[in-house]
Amino acid sequence: SSVPQATDNNGSMQNHPSEAIINLDHGDPTMYESYWKKLGQKHNLTIPGFQSLSYFSNIKNLCWFLEPKLEQEIKMLHNIVGNAIIKDHHIIVGTGSSQLIMAALFALSEPLNQPNPINVVSPAPYYSSYPEMTDLLRSGLFKWGGDANTYDHKDEPYIEMVTSPNNPDGVIRKPVVITNGAKGMLVHDLVYYWPQYTAITSPADHDIMLFTVSKCTGHAGSRIGWALVRDENVAKKMVKFIEVNTIGVSKEAQLRAANILETISVSCQKIKSRDLENFFEYSHNLLVERWKKLREAIKKNELFCVAKFPLQYCNFSGDFTESYPAFAWMKCKDGVDCEKLLKEHKILSRSGRRFGSDPEYVRVSMLSRDEEIDVFLKRLPTILDCK
Amino acid sequence: SSVPQATDNNGSMQNHPSEAIINLDHGDPTMYESYWKKLGQKHNLTIPGFQSLSYFSNIKNLCWFLEPKLEQEIKMLHNIVGNAIIKDHHIIVGTGSSQLIMAALFALSEPLNQPNPINVVSPAPYYSSYPEMTDLLRSGLFKWGGDANTYDHKDEPYIEMVTSPNNPDGVIRKPVVITNGAKGMLVHDLVYYWPQYTAITSPADHDIMLFTVSKCTGHAGSRIGWALVRDENVAKKMVKFIEVNTIGVSKEAQLRAANILETISVSCQKIKSRDLENFFEYSHNLLVERWKKLREAIKKNELFCVAKFPLQYCNFSGDFTESYPAFAWMKCKDGVDCEKLLKEHKILSRSGRRFGSDPEYVRVSMLSRDEEIDVFLKRLPTILDCK
Repeated sequence: SSVPQATDNNGSMQNHPSEAIINLDHGDPTMYESYWKKLGQKHNLTIPGFQSLSYFSNIKNLCWFLEPKLEQEIKMLHNIVGNAIIKDHHIIVGTGSSQLIMAALFALSEPLNQPNPINVVSPAPYYSSYPEMTDLLRSGLFKWGGDANTYDHKDEPYIEMVTSPNNPDGVIRKPVVITNGAKGMLVHDLVYYWPQYTAITSPADHDIMLFTVSKCTGHAGSRIGWALVRDENVAKKMVKFIEVNTIGVSKEAQLRAANILETISVSCQKIKSRDLENFFEYSHNLLVERWKKLREAIKKNELFCVAKFPLQYCNFSGDFTESYPAFAWMKCKDGVDCEKLLKEHKILSRSGRRFGSDPEYVRVSMLSRDEEIDVFLKRLPTILDCK
Repeated sequence: SSVPQATDNNGSMQNHPSEAIINLDHGDPTMYESYWKKLGQKHNLTIPGFQSLSYFSNIKNLCWFLEPKLEQEIKMLHNIVGNAIIKDHHIIVGTGSSQLIMAALFALSEPLNQPNPINVVSPAPYYSSYPEMTDLLRSGLFKWGGDANTYDHKDEPYIEMVTSPNNPDGVIRKPVVITNGAKGMLVHDLVYYWPQYTAITSPADHDIMLFTVSKCTGHAGSRIGWALVRDENVAKKMVKFIEVNTIGVSKEAQLRAANILETISVSCQKIKSRDLENFFEYSHNLLVERWKKLREAIKKNELFCVAKFPLQYCNFSGDFTESYPAFAWMKCKDGVDCEKLLKEHKILSRSGRRFGSDPEYVRVSMLSRDEEIDVFLKRLPTILDCK
């Protein structure tokens, strides 16, 4: 977290590009700044000093700290995009999706009252934060159980994290642990299931589904995520976790997120507004361009490779599209520690080891600012030459 | 959390006052709305859509998610009020002080690598959330150890929460567990150490000190707290906890809190501004008035009593003052379940049992809106008549 980046907080290069350290380790979604800068001051949020002093947003709601306007905009956006079924689900706001993952693990495990912590699993390569957040406090309720592909305690209760599209590799996933009973519980982490990244093939309709503005609109600094939860008791327990952990979620961040979601919903309207480009089209086009350049840079040699994604029909765009994930999951040739190699060339990435995979793999963010992606793509061939 | 209140979110009575349920269970600081409403639109915060997309606020700071402007205003305010020594302390922002308590427990216990969870203690009556937050995930690092007055495992590492002024009873506290070794670790929860509540007798200077805007300015909805931490390794571990728990703290909330703290610092300037009343004077006067009325309402009978507080010199106001706590810690006559009695009269309070104390006690919020406090104070004599 304290590593230097190529750009400072204003997005300008600190060093000459050829010298700069390019930090593509985190999935910091600064790519989206260009869209929001175009809108200028037109979509500002203004909060007077006397607003939102109370802990409470809506005491009649199961999720008493959820701002009604945010609830409304979340529903609106899912209806427009068609990526999730809102009906028969409770909406729970969280301080980013991280807090909601913890809340879900708590809500599913606590009522079981097991003598030992239950296993939380996900197939490798899995999101590198899952083991860390699961084991942080050495909970007696749950513990990290590793790669779901090799999980074999199916007679005990367990939780499988189903991340789709998957972080780090962008693959569309279904649960992998096959159970004969009802011991398995699922948390669907759908934070990348938006049309800039992948085809929206059908509205997701699971027991617990997680989303976040970070990966939808780029506003990672707001720390706003939401869960769609079918079961009322699970929803109540998740609310309880957030109540004890942080006594709710910042109202300012919720109001801003509501504003931002409203803007992108408006941008999707069929009758085009002259000064408001369709947000998902704009972002999709940026990612298509970046992935095209990445594949070109990689094609020139045999050191790196990235997977191909199938062409699928997207109900949102009304067109066929491949996936253009938020991360490139790059594989180096056998025996090469890819993170180390890239670091020698001042490119910071995250090793495959962190995802339960091999050191030949790295995860590289595709959501950085243009300047950083450009330097990265120019530097890739240099690495090949130096080998 | 889902109990009805006398007022809706706009502060207007839902029922006729004589019928209304008055919720004084939570410490929702809506009393402060009147100050901020007077300022009107002059101290609005405006955030353009393109601001603060990144997870990062300042990559060069140990607390990489702390907004520089908030850091600056926290320092400014402590210097003006004189309630804490900033020098040689790291500032860590949290999603309210709740998250910072958890972060501190993690940071102090994790490096010890003990086979069993260490005890977290505080003298009764203690803040009712401590046991709940400590034991929520059945951590292997720490567990609630109960009343510090009777704690007797002093040969093992433990953490004492030193809450001063104390929640629920407003008493100024020092650590109570006397150790012969260095096994005891302290967390100073100073969220009520502000001049509206009590005399600022000297600047606090402890290893870990916690504050929050909720109790300082009334902006509980923002969920912004901060810790002043002496030891760099402890500070780093606290940052790590917040990183894994919520990947930082909402930028909008931080920017708003910075704005709000700046306003109250300006309001304290010796050269009075015509349209900006000294925030602490204003709030102190409100609390003095409310406590005066409460003591009058109680004096008329022998059913309830509240403690007296000593007169002390306040360095901030330059005058002697008693304490006027955010909560009234009321005792009923022996054998009466006070929470139950008040509930029969549609006054929701929190039982002494929740604070490790007796059912004769209740905690009643003194920070609600005028309308609610008025109904409460009018209803108290009714209760006496009905007995």
